[in-house]
Parts: sequence; structure tokens; C-alpha cells
Amino acid sequence: MASYDRIAKLSLDRGFYFPSSEIYSDSMAGFWEYGPNGNNLKNKFIELWRRELVRRDDMIEIDGSQIMSKNVFVASGHIDNFSDPVIVCSKCKSTLRADKFIFDKTRINVPEGASNNEVDEVLNQNNLKCPTCGSSFQPTERFNMMFKVGIGPRNEEAYLRPETCQAIFVDFKRIFKIMRGKLPFSIAQVGKSFRNEIAPRQSLLRLREFYQAEIEVFCNPNELDSLSKFDEIKDTILTINDGSEVFKLTAKEAIENKIIPNKLIAYYLSILNEFYEKTGIDMNQTRFRKLSDKEKAFYATIAFDFELKTSVGWLELVACNYRSNYDLDQHSKISKEKMEITDPVTNEKVLPHVFELSLGIDRSIYSVLESSFFDDHENDRVILKLKPYLAPILAGILPLVKKPELGDIAKNIYHDLKKDFDMYYDESGSIGRRYRRLEEIGVPFAITVDYDTLEDKTVTVRYRDTMQQKRIKMKDLKSFFVENKDP
Amino acid sequence: MASYDRIAKLSLDRGFYFPSSEIYSDSMAGFWEYGPNGNNLKNKFIELWRRELVRRDDMIEIDGSQIMSKNVFVASGHIDNFSDPVIVCSKCKSTLRADKFIFDKTRINVPEGASNNEVDEVLNQNNLKCPTCGSSFQPTERFNMMFKVGIGPRNEEAYLRPETCQAIFVDFKRIFKIMRGKLPFSIAQVGKSFRNEIAPRQSLLRLREFYQAEIEVFCNPNELDSLSKFDEIKDTILTINDGSEVFKLTAKEAIENKIIPNKLIAYYLSILNEFYEKTGIDMNQTRFRKLSDKEKAFYATIAFDFELKTSVGWLELVACNYRSNYDLDQHSKISKEKMEITDPVTNEKVLPHVFELSLGIDRSIYSVLESSFFDDHENDRVILKLKPYLAPILAGILPLVKKPELGDIAKNIYHDLKKDFDMYYDESGSIGRRYRRLEEIGVPFAITVDYDTLEDKTVTVRYRDTMQQKRIKMKDLKSFFVENKDP
Repeated sequence: MASYDRIAKLSLDRGFYFPSSEIYSDSMAGFWEYGPNGNNLKNKFIELWRRELVRRDDMIEIDGSQIMSKNVFVASGHIDNFSDPVIVCSKCKSTLRADKFIFDKTRINVPEGASNNEVDEVLNQNNLKCPTCGSSFQPTERFNMMFKVGIGPRNEEAYLRPETCQAIFVDFKRIFKIMRGKLPFSIAQVGKSFRNEIAPRQSLLRLREFYQAEIEVFCNPNELDSLSKFDEIKDTILTINDGSEVFKLTAKEAIENKIIPNKLIAYYLSILNEFYEKTGIDMNQTRFRKLSDKEKAFYATIAFDFELKTSVGWLELVACNYRSNYDLDQHSKISKEKMEITDPVTNEKVLPHVFELSLGIDRSIYSVLESSFFDDHENDRVILKLKPYLAPILAGILPLVKKPELGDIAKNIYHDLKKDFDMYYDESGSIGRRYRRLEEIGVPFAITVDYDTLEDKTVTVRYRDTMQQKRIKMKDLKSFFVENKDP
Repeated sequence: MASYDRIAKLSLDRGFYFPSSEIYSDSMAGFWEYGPNGNNLKNKFIELWRRELVRRDDMIEIDGSQIMSKNVFVASGHIDNFSDPVIVCSKCKSTLRADKFIFDKTRINVPEGASNNEVDEVLNQNNLKCPTCGSSFQPTERFNMMFKVGIGPRNEEAYLRPETCQAIFVDFKRIFKIMRGKLPFSIAQVGKSFRNEIAPRQSLLRLREFYQAEIEVFCNPNELDSLSKFDEIKDTILTINDGSEVFKLTAKEAIENKIIPNKLIAYYLSILNEFYEKTGIDMNQTRFRKLSDKEKAFYATIAFDFELKTSVGWLELVACNYRSNYDLDQHSKISKEKMEITDPVTNEKVLPHVFELSLGIDRSIYSVLESSFFDDHENDRVILKLKPYLAPILAGILPLVKKPELGDIAKNIYHDLKKDFDMYYDESGSIGRRYRRLEEIGVPFAITVDYDTLEDKTVTVRYRDTMQQKRIKMKDLKSFFVENKDP
């Protein structure tokens, strides 16, 4: 596994990601761009998520507006609760995020739900002063992390969404009806969310503009243990940290031992686990960590974070929250729209509860990169061992030497395949150097056209990880890639 | 072809699109959501664009930040120039977009480049007064259409991008180097853009938050006619309105007759044309319209709009602008970063010029829906004749009757195929009614499991448009869909 710094350098040099507006002096922290390779990787990660979660579980997917009206966030609680504690120096006016500053100085974790007074107490007890001028701080304040935007000539108040899921709650009733839904009913959405972080950091790990893939499972709270599809995943092995102990056990055992409270939650944690297995991250370095009451978001009654141990410590990739009927109830109260539906299975009138899988795409992309990074000292090469279905480019097409008789055939192969697959044509430099360039961005296959090709219409397929080579017929290339590109 | 209203109703009822925050009284015009069917259609449209433009032309694609720093838009000219004329009633303070108000009242088109004085003149000459109270207007003002956002606790000035392309310009040099580029070099991007329209209207046709797919072709201005790939498209037939006459001619003829100024522009207009042909819109109702100097955007020296005649008139789907070196030059001046590169083909030092294809996704989605809508009065059905590669669902899997012996087989087929294709299982209602439901959302195939299936392991494939049926073996279904899902 690579260090954070090596991934950061590779990403800059090879176009995975880099800072936004980087040529400008007023460019701001927390905004990044996906370059060509990062964009392909990210899109393929999303496709895998669609395949292994959305389509697997018969979820439906929507794509809502990023700007939503004020009342949406009055109802969701974000106007009142979605804030970070801020401290301002009484003298030099330096502005810091209090919990982060306290952790950096003392390793004390101020929990998410701590009040301003509790933060002040920790500052006083530890005698913490302004790092710039040494003065004391003004009393802790709250800084709301939503970005406000004014709409139209009258500047009406609206917000960039801080999470994608609010559209799912607001649209729930229309979609449930259109799709003739049955509980449990899952709606997914992937897209940008926005949080005005006080201290964004570490490129993709804490962004102000970021990608989420969220799934909201609407369910009947009386039916959480009558889920027949639980049988599909009962033997899936999960690692769970319940706050004191770590368990490695099957979904069935987790239910029997009450480590997971019900079958519905166990099912969704399991299919999430199976999805991440396919991304190629080291599952031995992952865990579902049960959050304490102080750590949970304000809307959650049960919460597990899916975490990966990386070179910068444990990283939260997915927040799995049982939100009860908090959201539908709140939207119902503020909008005056009834949100109850009739459960077509039990014929009960019910305000559905929600279990959510809120996945951070950017952090997952970083994790996939770090997990796939491999230093092959013996052969003096760096490889990204990306799965073929995640690799930005599926294959390089290389004439062995730069000669028209080989180049023309190689170009024809490239042209035949490029509409269907992400291909890369390269004829410049030694063949060894061209292999290295492909390996560094994770291309799993290299196709070489050589003088034998002229005789017998075969080409060499070289496998990135093993460096093994085999000859295959040119006319079988397309079916080779069809077979080798899917999970 | 259907009317706007029928498409709007179908979209609401069948989950193609609907207003954002719709349950709230403070929901705002110009923000819409894609429901399940619209989201699938939109994603498949983007995939087709990737296939037929990005991969076909060896473009590379990035995904940049939506919020960018102020200086980016100082350089791009949007801070100074990206505004609409607004008129405010001197008495009741009603606020209107001047050019739209004038057009509605008089059918006079105020050109995009008109000054405030010119607008005032038209108002006076036509004696136009406030439609609410009859009073006269204050002098015309400018309303900047960018959304401002404040970043961090110090509220630093930044903007939601009004077009996706600025990131492409700002990142150009890094990407050209990483990808070892050669001119012409094309960078594509798809994503949300934001414009604070004074008068958003007609659902997807004028939005405040909308999807663009933009392509910026960086080129050497001295090499616009030395493009060998021009030969690929020389016989492609284009319809061009040059402001006075309409020509229907090949790309080659357009160059010979100087209807299109150079081969580079002709090539990109042609591949764009070929892409739209694949979307299924009626190409006989399209044209490239050359814009007059007054109509062009402030950065364009040559501009063609690709337009489709719809039930609400001619609709601009793609703006094709020759932006010269305006953008790179401006970013170079404001950022002090040199933007010149050495053209590896001619070895010339050059500040590339840019030709752009700026495609509106939402309007294209509307156009595809309207073009594919078909009222089959004879059989009392409504069909969306969507291409299989654009259809939200590829096939419905239907047991002929709701009996376990058929349902179990149908469910197995569904489970085998659903990870690879968008499938829909439906067993409720008569078979005719289930066909209708599928046809209305454009599903091209229905697979029926009946009692013969139990005997010979075959199923019926029914074709949406012709209603023809044929038997195929269950085990051949996957390859049937592989063959029938791509363009």
C-alpha cells in the first residue's frame, strides 16, 4: 500500500485529480477536478455501484436538483443543526474549526453533538490559545456549512444541497406511486453535494464540493425482520466494531447475537460489503463501526460507519444510518403534504422508516487508488492493480516498433474497438517504456502487433499484473474484451 | 410528433421529469428533477455522446468543479458581460426580463448584444408599459446571471459555473502535457451548469440548473484546413441556414462553396450531425443556423446553432462557437500563466484557438421524447419509439399469467439478466395492459414466459414498434440483448 503523498503525486502527474482553478491565486481549498484518468475511474466506480447495488436490489435511481428551496432544509434540520463549532481569536481574529484545533493539539475527540459550552470547557481545561498570537478565543460560535444562493432578481433564499438524499425524501410519494412501489422500496441517487467546510484538507478526503452515491431504503418499521432476501447474504462475512469489541462473523450470526439489530440492516450492510469487495480494496482492513450516541448525526437512531484503514488512518467511506421516520415526518410537517402510504404487502397505513447507505465517492476513489498501488522493485515499475472494470483504459494497442506495416494494423485494431471500450494507441518510445506508462495508470492489458501478426493475424496480449503474454487471434479481440471487462 | 403539453403530462405521470421541491410553496421555477425513467434516458444519452463523439474522435474527458474562483470569471468575461437586460416598473417595482417582454408584446427580437440604451429605445418606440400597473419603467439595468457563493468563514467570492468549459480552459496546459497532446486536441466535459435566469420556463427548455455536454477543440489556427480525418465525413449531408438561404449539401460541398469556413469546423459539425442521427430525432427537422454578429455570444467569432423544429418552435440544442484564442488569452492575462504550447506537428509555438460544441442535454432529452412520441390510434396505444440504447428499460419480463410455475421461470430470467441490463419484471394485470405500460415508457422488447416455455425452454420476444413476436431459446436471451442494445 502506498502513502498518501505518493498517491497525490501520481494523481497530479498522471491526471487522476488536481486542484481546481489551480492557475489562479484566489483558488480555494476543498475544490478539485478529476482529470482524464480519474474521471474514467470515477465513472466506472459509479457503474459498478449501479450494477452491484442499484440493479442487484431492484432499486430505482433519480437525479434531482442540487439547489433546493429553503423550506426543504428547514424541514431536514440543516438550517438549525448543520453547523461546525468555530472559534475566533479575540485579538487577531484568526478563525479556526474548534473540534479540529482541539484534536490537533490534545488528541481529544470533541463529539459531533457537543454544545458550544462543552467546547469552551475543553478549550479552558486544556488552556488552549490562538496559535497565531497567543490570545484567548471568543466564545465558540456555530458556522452553518450550507452554501446559500439567491434566486432570481428578488434574491430568494435557497441552498446547495449538503447531501443528495433530501430530494429522495421530498419526491418519495410521487415516485412510490409512479413505480407502483412495495416496501421495502429503495431509491438511489448519485451526484454532487456541497459543504462549506472550515478546514478542507487532503485533496479528495475532505472536500467542499464532493460526489455522493446515496441509497434510501423506505421500510415498514414492523417488518424489519421479515425480509426473505436476507437468505441471499446470510453467510456473508462482516467485520463489526461495536465500540468495544471487534467481531468477524456472518450476517446470520450478527443477527443471532444482536450485533446488528435487524435483518434489513444486515442485508444492506452485506450487499454493501460485497460491492466493496469487487472494488479491490483490502477487505481485511475494513470494518463497520457502530457509532456512539454522541457521534451520530442528528437524524440517526442507529449508525454504522463503513471504514477502511489507509495510510492516513481510518477513513469513513459510507455512513449507514437508520433515520427512522425523521425525514418524512419533518417534510410532512413543514410542507403540509401527507407522506403516509399504504404498505401493499401488509395493507397497513404507514409512515415509512428509512435506512440509508450514504457513500462518499471521492474518498472511495482515493481508497481504490491507494489499495491498488504496487511498487514492483524487482522489475523497477509502479503498477496500479485496478480491476479491469475500474481501469480508466482497458487496453493499450501498441505496434512493436514504429513502422507503417505494423502501425497501420495496430491503428485498425484501435479504430475497431475504441467505440465499445476505452482504448489507448501508443507508438512512441521503446515497448518497455510503453508498458510502464500503461501500468502506472492501471491498464490491465497491452496488445502488441509484431511481425508475426503479418503472417498469422495473431497479436500478443500481455497481462499487467503477471507480465505473462499469450497470442490470440485478432478477430477474437472483441470477445476477449467483452469477457474480461465485467465483474 | 406530440405537443409540448402531452410530453409534459407523460413525463409527470411516468417519472421522466417533474419540478424540484414540488411539495413546498417556496419551490422555485427553473429547477427540475429526473425521475427513474428520465434519469436512465439521460444517462444513456450521455453514454451515446461519449461513444459517438468523445471516443470516436479520441477526445479526452475531465470532470471539474462546479464552483470556481472569482478570477476565473473575471478572465472569461462573465463578471462583466454575462447579464440580461432587466426592467423594473417605476411604480409597482415589477421586475421583468426586457428582451423577453418586448418579444412577447411586439415579436421584435432584441439581439443579445444590444445596449441598455437600445433596449430603452425599443420600449419607448413601442410605448411599452408595466403589464401590472401601466406605469413606465426605470432605465434598463443589467442582471448578472451567475450565482454567487461565499466560501469559508471569510465568505470569499466564488461562483457556480455558468458553462462547464471554463475548467477545460484553465486546466488545458496540465492536461495537454499529461496526455502528450497533439493539435487538434479535444477535451470534453459533462456536468451541471447554473444560470440565474430571470424568466425560466417550459420545464427542461429553460432551466436555472441544467446539464451541458461541452467539447472544446484546441487547434492551430494556421492548420484549420489540413485535417486528414475530414475525409471520413466528406459525404455527410448537412442542412445549413446561413441567415438568408437554406442549403442541404455534403460537408465537402459546404467547404467548396464556403458555406462553412474551414475543414475543422465542417468535421465537427458533421460528427455532431451523425451523433444526433443516432438519437432518433427527425434530421429533416434540423438545421445548422449561422448566427449574425448581433446574435453571437460575446466570445464567438463564428457561430452556428444546431436547431430542431419542435412543437414549441425552433429549439437550440447545440451552440457551435469558434472562440478563437479569446479564452486562453484572457486566462493567461489574468492568471499570468503562459498558455502557449508547441504544436508537436508543425513545431510552431502557438496559443491554440478553440472551436466548441456546447450541447444542452436537457433540451436534447426533451427533443428525443417529443420525436419518439407516437399515438397509435388504431391499436389504442401510446408508444415512445426510443432507440434500444436510449430506452430507460431494455426489456420487460412477463409471465403470461400470474401462476407460480410461470412466475418462477420469469423471475429467474429477470435475475440472470438484471445486473447487465435494465430489466423490469411485471406480473400484475392482463398481458395487454402490461404491454401498454412498457410501450408508454419506450421499452423496446417484452419477453413473455408461457406454457410452451415449460415444454421447450423458449420464450416470446415481442417488438414494441411492430408488435411482431418470435420465439427464442431462453439460453440465447443474453446474446440477443447484447446484439440489440448497442447502436
